[in-house]
Amino acid sequence: MTKRKICVVITARPSYSRIKSALTAIKNHPYLELQLVVAGAALLGRYGNAVDYIEKDGFKVAEKVFMVLEGENPTAMAKTTGLGVMELSNVFYKLQPDAVVTIADRFETIATSIAAAYQNIPLVHIQGGEVTGNIDEKVRHANTKLADIHLVASEDAKQRVLKLGEQPAMVINTGCPSIDLAKEVLESPTLNFDPIEKYGGVGTLIDWKQGYMVVMQHPVTNEYQQAKKDVTTTLEVVAALNIPTFWFWPNVDAGSDGTSSGIRTFRELHQPKNIRFFKNMEPNDFLRLLVNSKCLIGNSSVGIRECAFLGVPVVNIGTRQHRRHRGKNVTDVGYDKQQITQAIEHCLTLKILPSETIYGNGTAGLKIAEALATVPLQFHKTIVY
Amino acid sequence: MTKRKICVVITARPSYSRIKSALTAIKNHPYLELQLVVAGAALLGRYGNAVDYIEKDGFKVAEKVFMVLEGENPTAMAKTTGLGVMELSNVFYKLQPDAVVTIADRFETIATSIAAAYQNIPLVHIQGGEVTGNIDEKVRHANTKLADIHLVASEDAKQRVLKLGEQPAMVINTGCPSIDLAKEVLESPTLNFDPIEKYGGVGTLIDWKQGYMVVMQHPVTNEYQQAKKDVTTTLEVVAALNIPTFWFWPNVDAGSDGTSSGIRTFRELHQPKNIRFFKNMEPNDFLRLLVNSKCLIGNSSVGIRECAFLGVPVVNIGTRQHRRHRGKNVTDVGYDKQQITQAIEHCLTLKILPSETIYGNGTAGLKIAEALATVPLQFHKTIVY
Amino acid sequence: MTKRKICVVITARPSYSRIKSALTAIKNHPYLELQLVVAGAALLGRYGNAVDYIEKDGFKVAEKVFMVLEGENPTAMAKTTGLGVMELSNVFYKLQPDAVVTIADRFETIATSIAAAYQNIPLVHIQGGEVTGNIDEKVRHANTKLADIHLVASEDAKQRVLKLGEQPAMVINTGCPSIDLAKEVLESPTLNFDPIEKYGGVGTLIDWKQGYMVVMQHPVTNEYQQAKKDVTTTLEVVAALNIPTFWFWPNVDAGSDGTSSGIRTFRELHQPKNIRFFKNMEPNDFLRLLVNSKCLIGNSSVGIRECAFLGVPVVNIGTRQHRRHRGKNVTDVGYDKQQITQAIEHCLTLKILPSETIYGNGTAGLKIAEALATVPLQFHKTIVY
Amino acid sequence: MTKRKICVVITARPSYSRIKSALTAIKNHPYLELQLVVAGAALLGRYGNAVDYIEKDGFKVAEKVFMVLEGENPTAMAKTTGLGVMELSNVFYKLQPDAVVTIADRFETIATSIAAAYQNIPLVHIQGGEVTGNIDEKVRHANTKLADIHLVASEDAKQRVLKLGEQPAMVINTGCPSIDLAKEVLESPTLNFDPIEKYGGVGTLIDWKQGYMVVMQHPVTNEYQQAKKDVTTTLEVVAALNIPTFWFWPNVDAGSDGTSSGIRTFRELHQPKNIRFFKNMEPNDFLRLLVNSKCLIGNSSVGIRECAFLGVPVVNIGTRQHRRHRGKNVTDVGYDKQQITQAIEHCLTLKILPSETIYGNGTAGLKIAEALATVPLQFHKTIVY
Repeated sequence: MTKRKICVVITARPSYSRIKSALTAIKNHPYLELQLVVAGAALLGRYGNAVDYIEKDGFKVAEKVFMVLEGENPTAMAKTTGLGVMELSNVFYKLQPDAVVTIADRFETIATSIAAAYQNIPLVHIQGGEVTGNIDEKVRHANTKLADIHLVASEDAKQRVLKLGEQPAMVINTGCPSIDLAKEVLESPTLNFDPIEKYGGVGTLIDWKQGYMVVMQHPVTNEYQQAKKDVTTTLEVVAALNIPTFWFWPNVDAGSDGTSSGIRTFRELHQPKNIRFFKNMEPNDFLRLLVNSKCLIGNSSVGIRECAFLGVPVVNIGTRQHRRHRGKNVTDVGYDKQQITQAIEHCLTLKILPSETIYGNGTAGLKIAEALATVPLQFHKTIVY
Repeated sequence: MTKRKICVVITARPSYSRIKSALTAIKNHPYLELQLVVAGAALLGRYGNAVDYIEKDGFKVAEKVFMVLEGENPTAMAKTTGLGVMELSNVFYKLQPDAVVTIADRFETIATSIAAAYQNIPLVHIQGGEVTGNIDEKVRHANTKLADIHLVASEDAKQRVLKLGEQPAMVINTGCPSIDLAKEVLESPTLNFDPIEKYGGVGTLIDWKQGYMVVMQHPVTNEYQQAKKDVTTTLEVVAALNIPTFWFWPNVDAGSDGTSSGIRTFRELHQPKNIRFFKNMEPNDFLRLLVNSKCLIGNSSVGIRECAFLGVPVVNIGTRQHRRHRGKNVTDVGYDKQQITQAIEHCLTLKILPSETIYGNGTAGLKIAEALATVPLQFHKTIVY
Repeated sequence: MTKRKICVVITARPSYSRIKSALTAIKNHPYLELQLVVAGAALLGRYGNAVDYIEKDGFKVAEKVFMVLEGENPTAMAKTTGLGVMELSNVFYKLQPDAVVTIADRFETIATSIAAAYQNIPLVHIQGGEVTGNIDEKVRHANTKLADIHLVASEDAKQRVLKLGEQPAMVINTGCPSIDLAKEVLESPTLNFDPIEKYGGVGTLIDWKQGYMVVMQHPVTNEYQQAKKDVTTTLEVVAALNIPTFWFWPNVDAGSDGTSSGIRTFRELHQPKNIRFFKNMEPNDFLRLLVNSKCLIGNSSVGIRECAFLGVPVVNIGTRQHRRHRGKNVTDVGYDKQQITQAIEHCLTLKILPSETIYGNGTAGLKIAEALATVPLQFHKTIVY
Repeated sequence: MTKRKICVVITARPSYSRIKSALTAIKNHPYLELQLVVAGAALLGRYGNAVDYIEKDGFKVAEKVFMVLEGENPTAMAKTTGLGVMELSNVFYKLQPDAVVTIADRFETIATSIAAAYQNIPLVHIQGGEVTGNIDEKVRHANTKLADIHLVASEDAKQRVLKLGEQPAMVINTGCPSIDLAKEVLESPTLNFDPIEKYGGVGTLIDWKQGYMVVMQHPVTNEYQQAKKDVTTTLEVVAALNIPTFWFWPNVDAGSDGTSSGIRTFRELHQPKNIRFFKNMEPNDFLRLLVNSKCLIGNSSVGIRECAFLGVPVVNIGTRQHRRHRGKNVTDVGYDKQQITQAIEHCLTLKILPSETIYGNGTAGLKIAEALATVPLQFHKTIVY
């Protein structure tokens, strides 16, 4: 039997860490052959050099696609996407995969969708059907309408994809593969490394051993000029609380300059004594850091997904995770000092929270590989209503 | 009061003729300013040089965007779209419109959608919500999910856009502007020109004055290698019937070479005595030709829309108009000589059919302009369910 | 010993036929490995589908690069070149050749040069140092300044490259590989096929067996609006002379529509009785056709190079071959009916001309391969004065 | 009389400061109209945001062209250039200038040349004919071969352009416009601002009032992996000398990460007490800083040009300025601690040097404008030999 060639396109560090267990399962599946394409921000040092982790983890990269146009503004985002369509069209023409996998909702993921759909290659969309309320949501649902097969992360998401008119047999709830790694970590949760020793970082040499918080705050695409102001609010709160804190730089996006510049300016002016800044960590180290933390602050989807499973309290700021299905671990607040402060103080009083499985039980990677091996691979579809 | 700047992107000859009355209404509206962008196949001689008609009709072209990559295959379609995103991003950045209008479902229309949506410009989609069952349908629904405002052509389409989760206040049934021109023509339907004298064409100098048929058959994108075979079937039927016929070359698409080469080969071998071939006509002349014809044969959407209003019998071949809402004037057949022959012979027995208004009553242009002048222009949205 | 990987980029039908013997010699050389890239017009049916001949001749194509932007105007030429730089950069990054070969002076050849030079890959330019006096000449000399190694076709060209400041050790006169095929043909010159039977063509079924002429006229880039007028002049002369004639369509270029449309219009209006039109022929058949012809008319470089060696009289029209070193077989004329007519009539009086070796003696392919195997491959250079 | 429309393309901060007086002269010339295009790194914050200075200086920017592809490697350089050709083709098509001006030799300047030359727009090249010995030199001479008019900066350069076969009437020695600003500064050379107060910078708050040095070291394109090592050598020397020093970050280029990362690493490890780091300064402030300094160290062309006129001693490291015509103010050294140290120590013993006019006498801007107003604007050329 000929193996199905499955081409997965990774365009950013967090997409990789989210999909990693599925990549492993595809690679190991007897009826599948993995064609891994690493593109965009996943290739760039400024955004954490995901490609190095990918190769270190033993995955063979079939193609590298440089496509990020500099400019840090919406026009550059659009042009990066256009360039991505052109480049990925070449790549798929050359690799001739049996199916292409596009992940979630970052702006450039639609480039993968168009390059595959227009060349009549069955398109698999992972993590469709969720709701966030900004450009990401437009991209995500557009990906759904371009895709033939939908591997979703929750029952809530599945119902929404069905309402969008997709054929029921082509919508499968596999859970989110990011939970697979969380499950491994939860099975032996000890913090078995010194974050500063292993990853360096910059800023104060904080004493984290008596307890610490984690912050990860991304710019919100549609309001990128606000990014600097928003991150400064969080910085002021965290500095005032004076609890040891690991702070992670944002991922690439229009407006990352706003957030990054906010962080740099604050550091220069205030030299906060309780914060250490990091570019990124290996995903399992990051989850281990989270599970041992007092809470996660910011607007990362990690707070919604992995932290629900890990039982980590989350202070979720602003609209970035708007309407995503969430567990009891999440407290939502606005860009408001008082609200953020109170929510953090509340989290600090909590003990360990129960694990929730709304985004899966830790077997998503295997389910995704199995679905890819068995689902009919077709590219003709029509809306059901 | 500042006029709203409305940027409409035209990428093909048929899109122009379909939207023309709306362009006029926008241009004449006291609160609107038209920014017309002509792009892609609409600029190319091979596909009918729509830009010449546009300028001759008195519209000022704000920008011309060359973006069609040669190759006549799916990879070239994808890359053309990518290039379109890059080029149109520049154009919108420069023109700074208050809203961008993308039309229908051709593959490159998603380039307009992405370039506008990613730059936070309110996006208006015209003619969403329809069903066809191939790549066009994927593109059309993806356009819907990227768009903020939906100006649809029928009640059937409106209901479908609502089911896709769009906000009811943002979905407006204006009817199809192509009917506006049909209404004008129907008001004085005499064939007031000699098609061969005015447009030339190639092939036999047919005597059409005693009655004639019209053929317009496009390749079907997903099956483009079949295009040559499909068109040959129709050619054989039409040649055998030996009724004077005006045949129109297809529009650009992957596979146009298949259809065009089918026509050229057939002409060379058989020199059909009853067929005159045309590249294109001015839209009103074309409608006038239709309303005086015995029937239209092929797979053009003109058969579904304008001909319903005009009361012209249509033999609709194959899947291209699959599931589009249609009137009683349409007879659907497969790529089958006998079926096509019988359907044509049936049409030849018909008298004038009653006008149907499923795609509007001839005021769509005005309604579209009015909607553009009054609808809230916003680019934040979220799915309703 | 590791073989040197030599990446040759072919972008058009005539470039292929010119370089073919060198490709064979590279392929067969014990120290060389051929990486063949087929790009641009060489992939397109409209321009003769060179790729089919290449594969039929037994060459393995390492990469195909679609890069031709439609539009038939100078802007499209420029954008095609830009796209070529982007695409070929990917290709060279992937293939990692030890040297890249760019051929002659077509506008898109500079894309090969930039993609190689900027990535620090030694660049070999074939057929530099010649003079023509339009955009081709600008491109050719710019290629020379970007290239590290120069394999030129004549002593005249060698002296010019040296004057341009290149290092003497890096400038080698190999002769022109197009002469290699001419030599083979000259060794057994019988016309061993029926051109119409083998290649079809369109137009009159001429009786060529009593003697015939050949025409090949390309548009001149800088004057493309003139192309239609220029070709019409030649058509009028050739039709009036009423000698059986094989006429070849032009290659892609800005303005090809002018020339092609000139030919189509003339055919439609005058239906010339002595002309058969062809898209293209296999190179050796074409040379065999030439060597048995009374003369070649037009502005093809074949008249300057191969016909000098073959001893075929040439009526060279206009500026396209301006200042190229030429043999006694060439009569130069302007776009003037009387001049062209007289020159043709003079040619018709000639017997077989002696073979001239200004562009080599038929061993250029072997010399090119040997040079590629032995020349130092370096990418640092500086001007000698 | 219609003004000639002169389109100047600026792609980097140093190109702007070099050409500024010519821009002013073009803007003020009665027969010229300036169309200023700002592109590439000149638009990016990471490389000093030249566009802000340009607008602050009162120039109107006709078009902004985002074209820098991220990646900091040779492939990204090549693709940036390809993208530049595509984008600038659009820009010139739209602006319809009477002539386009491309400046010097940065890798992306050839994009300007191709976009203009292929569209038959007369191309003016400023600062051709110089020699440096790496990719810049290939680009510069290729620009010369694509250009129609050559405005060179020295007699030495003029002779070289003539040897390259250009027509004597089209080669004009205007001097270098960078000297024009130097002349203004030299007329009132007092350091009338506090660099740290005005520009901030990072690092030690040095006491520069008793004398200081300036460093500006760029990566050398062809050896970019060496960049980190090379800059570290200079850092070690300068730190050991312990003289107050203003250090300027390098401009964009493949390898800037190497240099920048070298600087960052050195700062983190050694926290040099005598160095203050700056991103950039307004050009006149920078020249004023230089004329009051003890010496300039590094490989900037400012050392060769402006410093010759200003009489500032220069320690020129490595090959970047290789074979450029230089004055007596320059001491050339290798990447060698001892050589660099000795050369600096020698400079520190020098008094004020005499002004040299090898790159002009401070009227180049006026001469350039006058040449642009009077030279025949043509795009047909052929080599003179």
